[in-house]
Amino acid sequence: MSLLTVGTVAFDTIETPYGKVDYVVGGASLYASWAATFFADNVHMISIIGEDFPDSELKALESRGATTEGIERVPGGKSFYWAGKYNDDMISRETLVTDLNVLADFDPVIPESGKQADYVLLGNLTPAVQNAVLDQLEGTPKLIVLDTMNFWIDVAREELDKVISRVDLLTINDEEARMLSGERSLVKSAKIIMESGPKYLIIKKGEHGAMLFHKDDIFYVPAMPIPEVIDPTGAGDTFAGGMLGYIASQGKVDFETIKTGIVYGSAAASYCVEDFSNDKLKSISKEDILTRVAKFKKLVEFKS
Amino acid sequence: MSLLTVGTVAFDTIETPYGKVDYVVGGASLYASWAATFFADNVHMISIIGEDFPDSELKALESRGATTEGIERVPGGKSFYWAGKYNDDMISRETLVTDLNVLADFDPVIPESGKQADYVLLGNLTPAVQNAVLDQLEGTPKLIVLDTMNFWIDVAREELDKVISRVDLLTINDEEARMLSGERSLVKSAKIIMESGPKYLIIKKGEHGAMLFHKDDIFYVPAMPIPEVIDPTGAGDTFAGGMLGYIASQGKVDFETIKTGIVYGSAAASYCVEDFSNDKLKSISKEDILTRVAKFKKLVEFKS
Repeated sequence: MSLLTVGTVAFDTIETPYGKVDYVVGGASLYASWAATFFADNVHMISIIGEDFPDSELKALESRGATTEGIERVPGGKSFYWAGKYNDDMISRETLVTDLNVLADFDPVIPESGKQADYVLLGNLTPAVQNAVLDQLEGTPKLIVLDTMNFWIDVAREELDKVISRVDLLTINDEEARMLSGERSLVKSAKIIMESGPKYLIIKKGEHGAMLFHKDDIFYVPAMPIPEVIDPTGAGDTFAGGMLGYIASQGKVDFETIKTGIVYGSAAASYCVEDFSNDKLKSISKEDILTRVAKFKKLVEFKS
Repeated sequence: MSLLTVGTVAFDTIETPYGKVDYVVGGASLYASWAATFFADNVHMISIIGEDFPDSELKALESRGATTEGIERVPGGKSFYWAGKYNDDMISRETLVTDLNVLADFDPVIPESGKQADYVLLGNLTPAVQNAVLDQLEGTPKLIVLDTMNFWIDVAREELDKVISRVDLLTINDEEARMLSGERSLVKSAKIIMESGPKYLIIKKGEHGAMLFHKDDIFYVPAMPIPEVIDPTGAGDTFAGGMLGYIASQGKVDFETIKTGIVYGSAAASYCVEDFSNDKLKSISKEDILTRVAKFKKLVEFKS
């Protein structure tokens, strides 16, 4: 069993109503791999960083079982950098700076050790890069998960459609589902999107939770109500990584396993947002996630 | 066991992306009583109507077990009338006409038969009228439910605070919870609001479902994903009426019973929005609601 995460490993400067942090570590592959390694061994990270990225963060991931061989370090280069400010609603945000830096020339190369990956998570990146990763896979993955965003729907629709047709599970938010399908109804959107390739679709609704679609079945998981969301950055990647890590640990892919995976991913994400960067994820254990999974069960259970 | 609903019985003109209907029946007490009578006998309606309101609609409610003795009919008067248009998102809406008509002089009088009500639903009305209803009760209700809206928070805060302090369960939407408490976090809002009186708080989130708060416990029910919402008018009242009707049928009030009641209310509301006015509610049976309650269970169940 091996799991591959592809995505940024980067620096973020984040301002929320709760404070501001400068040049903290972040990125889709970093959050996803951190979450996946709660459950899965043998997590291969595919990314690109500059000379500035702290070795200690990679060592911390390696000590959790991740392989960072697939992270290219560009001598003299600078890591991808994003700066943003969240509004009071903690949902909408303003991007202040996007410096692609080394990401501008990202041409992912999967090391031999990762080419047979059973589980693949394509984090939000240009669809051409996501397709280039799939081209290099040599095994038959049990589950390929794709994350994307509105920007790629707007500017790279053709290449995006191609990668969507090649994956098993797509995760997008509600507005993106409506953009992709041209349908207001999420139930109808889901049908249209699944006809274009993915057997499974997750529609993320931020503070309102997430929905999983598969054929005519629907599963709904709320977001864990927590007193204070400090920083939503990375929640989606943590969700996806935690989910896929759980699924990989089960060794099988079906609706029931993905449902439980989504709850595990939501539990991991609910911790992620309780502090800036991956600070909270660093302070919790697998047992903490299990405790919160039990809370999710209690949150929705009723007698009928 | 008896249940009292107080609220409008009225005409609506509604336009949604799916069509337009003119002068259809509506109103909080009408929707709530229709939903409550799926489960509860002995539902007393307290409202006011003009000479124009169709007798057939009252007869239909009576044939379901409702008592309309408490609906004052004003000779020569016109019933409350609301006209509105929903935007494409089916959430935001524009009010085109509000004619109070007979509602302007609504001074509710509870008939003797209703004064010992065990379950009371105060539909959205001016808080002074809601307090006037509570003043007339002679028994010891097991559960008093209050619905209100942002308008009253803005213009009648003092009178609203008074009625809030007198009820057991308050239902409001997420933005109203934030207005009432001055807190962004719903978990913190809930604590603040419950300190002002209600032991239970329901925060409605429209297409994202609803949350029940009680002490440190939280229950979350999603909205049933349906392919097409035709008309959201009356969904909140149907939800409250269905919930309270179920609770009344159980004869006890505790967190577990209210949880299940919320699912029953959500099931009723999910039918309500599938057609204009109370058209869909007229075509379904109690068994249809039970079928959807089972769907709610399936929607959130997972193995852990």
